[in-house]
Amino acid sequence: VSVQSSPATAPRRVLALDAADPHAHRRSAFQLDDDVVYMDGNSLGPLPLGARARIRQVVDNEWGCDLIRSWNTNDWINLPRRVGDRIGELIGAAPGQVVAGDSTSVCLFKLAAAAVQAQRGRSRLVTDTTNFPTDLYGLDGLARLDPSIEVVRVPPEAVLDAVDRETSLLVLSHIDYRSGAMRDLRTVTAAAHACGALTLWDLSHSVGAVPVALDADGADLAVGCTYKYLNGGPGAPAFAYVAARLHESMPPALRGWMGHRAPFALDEAFSPAAGARRYSCGTPEVLGLSVLDAALDVFTGVDMGTLRDKTARMSELFIELVEEHGHEHGLALVSPRNPAQRGSHVALEHPHAYPIMQALIARGVIGDFRAPNLMRFGFAPLYQSYADVWRAAQSLRDVLMSRAWDDESFKRIAFVT
Amino acid sequence: VSVQSSPATAPRRVLALDAADPHAHRRSAFQLDDDVVYMDGNSLGPLPLGARARIRQVVDNEWGCDLIRSWNTNDWINLPRRVGDRIGELIGAAPGQVVAGDSTSVCLFKLAAAAVQAQRGRSRLVTDTTNFPTDLYGLDGLARLDPSIEVVRVPPEAVLDAVDRETSLLVLSHIDYRSGAMRDLRTVTAAAHACGALTLWDLSHSVGAVPVALDADGADLAVGCTYKYLNGGPGAPAFAYVAARLHESMPPALRGWMGHRAPFALDEAFSPAAGARRYSCGTPEVLGLSVLDAALDVFTGVDMGTLRDKTARMSELFIELVEEHGHEHGLALVSPRNPAQRGSHVALEHPHAYPIMQALIARGVIGDFRAPNLMRFGFAPLYQSYADVWRAAQSLRDVLMSRAWDDESFKRIAFVT
Repeated sequence: VSVQSSPATAPRRVLALDAADPHAHRRSAFQLDDDVVYMDGNSLGPLPLGARARIRQVVDNEWGCDLIRSWNTNDWINLPRRVGDRIGELIGAAPGQVVAGDSTSVCLFKLAAAAVQAQRGRSRLVTDTTNFPTDLYGLDGLARLDPSIEVVRVPPEAVLDAVDRETSLLVLSHIDYRSGAMRDLRTVTAAAHACGALTLWDLSHSVGAVPVALDADGADLAVGCTYKYLNGGPGAPAFAYVAARLHESMPPALRGWMGHRAPFALDEAFSPAAGARRYSCGTPEVLGLSVLDAALDVFTGVDMGTLRDKTARMSELFIELVEEHGHEHGLALVSPRNPAQRGSHVALEHPHAYPIMQALIARGVIGDFRAPNLMRFGFAPLYQSYADVWRAAQSLRDVLMSRAWDDESFKRIAFVT
Repeated sequence: VSVQSSPATAPRRVLALDAADPHAHRRSAFQLDDDVVYMDGNSLGPLPLGARARIRQVVDNEWGCDLIRSWNTNDWINLPRRVGDRIGELIGAAPGQVVAGDSTSVCLFKLAAAAVQAQRGRSRLVTDTTNFPTDLYGLDGLARLDPSIEVVRVPPEAVLDAVDRETSLLVLSHIDYRSGAMRDLRTVTAAAHACGALTLWDLSHSVGAVPVALDADGADLAVGCTYKYLNGGPGAPAFAYVAARLHESMPPALRGWMGHRAPFALDEAFSPAAGARRYSCGTPEVLGLSVLDAALDVFTGVDMGTLRDKTARMSELFIELVEEHGHEHGLALVSPRNPAQRGSHVALEHPHAYPIMQALIARGVIGDFRAPNLMRFGFAPLYQSYADVWRAAQSLRDVLMSRAWDDESFKRIAFVT
């Protein structure tokens, strides 16, 4: 498996972009093979070397030697809050409003359930049909538990019209997992507030990828995934954000001892902790949170605005290169053409998307496939070069021109990607 | 920090027990310092060496090199089911009924919520006042979500009288986290069934510690923790058991894409997977599940009955040694005196339990403290010797006789233990 076009063959204008890239040095913080062009950070970020070192330290020493004492001496007990606050820095949330832990699906459920209770008397929970399916499933599950809730699913463009004075909560993805289309968080939130509704944003494709300013934009609730652009590892703990002004009026719905003011008092009655820690539930997943904590170090000193500039330049370069030949081979751009309106991945449609992506992977260009006909290419400026982007576009061109994908071995469907 | 009494000074009868112990060789599967007597496996099991090797493999190779492809090539996607089935072997559950993932608190909530829905028309959810607080909090949270549910908490001895034809679900810990008292799972389940109620057992202090036969005993639902006697690591994923006969009538309440029949079809409508996988929710926590998978290897070839025999002998030895001097120093046994009625830890009460435990820890005997006045000593035959037990009892005697605990440094309360 090797990339057909080596970086040396990239045009001078592409190499010049890399030479001037202020983020170029950050690639060395990751374990990445130079033969591989990794464009699937929108699904699973690569391994930060610091995370690799940290898990050894946590397993061998903190667990292996210090054992139970580590809850105090290595401050395991505060991982959800500490890691939460670090994520908060990347999404414009002041300390005490973000807690890390549980899966995104569980986080979404717990915030939606708490919000619906805080908004009793309003029966409609609005979302859009293009929301990530696990979010849709979670809301439907909640509505089955509480039959007074009606989940209203509307097409993405009809969302604001669907929010009314009966709406308790509007649940949306900030960036669409398929098209990469990005919503205006501030405007949508304000429109929901005008009807007295709360908003719950799924930031899975935003955190670590685009600037987010939850506090400044008046956000209420948010959840997100950390195994994509935060490089927290497979199945890494998710996070939940609740604006401080809501903590008192929105008691946790999914309750556990780690959300208690004094977990080790082992009180029979639940008394919520101060701040977002009240939305913690079970015992923190120390290994996953520690890896995530170390993974966040690669963002130290990174300005999300300049990171976003590089993403926009990389994705523009990719789209331009693809447009030179794409139409004649049946490729269609699904993502918004305006970089300001899309997140950090570019989605292309093709009737043979699955075997094309397999042929690309065989050439060392790793993107992903989403049924039935979508290829996604993720842009992650911390570890990708402009030459990588050029190589990806060249490989895609090669695969299409040579019909390399028309090989039975590329058509056998594996479970994921 | 060193243990006052070395193993060599243990009486001949204690050394003879070790010489005849069929489990003695298993200690070498763990990273344990010979200076330490670790009696806190009821809170956090020690590090199995196989788990230490496995996390390196998963991080460095599966994540670091194979990246996103590992969902298929390293079968990450099936970890919840595979690890679940392995746990099932230890609790008498045939394959397809146990799924690993999420915290115990989340697992308890999701099964209780699903059961209550399957039992609509019955409003009472019965538990006992001594249940682990996170279980109580979770049930109260559920009742707040669905006001038609009433949570009835009764003293432990009144549980069976409280179950009636209005009861949907009886939620109990199999082994009490404080006293170690063990309930008769089969008898209680049958009594609940006689009223048409379902049962949900918290096996956190049972799994890997005592024989459990869920299928044979007619159990309905169970959850449990894997960081105690299964040595799965700090905050390791929990598990959920649902008897196969209930899968169809009990759709999942906390829904996510990993509980879907075809997660990557990304259908808008939820269609539950076959078997207990339907109770999975978000993306599996691959690092935690992999460590747990490797940790379970230490149980290969272990018969839970003979393991339990050693636990009973060890705890009897400990109680006998403590009884020789304990009363005069104000110690009281909280656990049932009959080993058949207690689980795998022994609880002792003392007005100065906290500084006594700190003084023991300073001597290398690690047990734990539960507010306000309880010391717990966990017995784990896979890595403890009878000489360890003797050393623990001797150290306790030393601390009490010398009043070593009456030192200000031992009285400063840390968060945990």
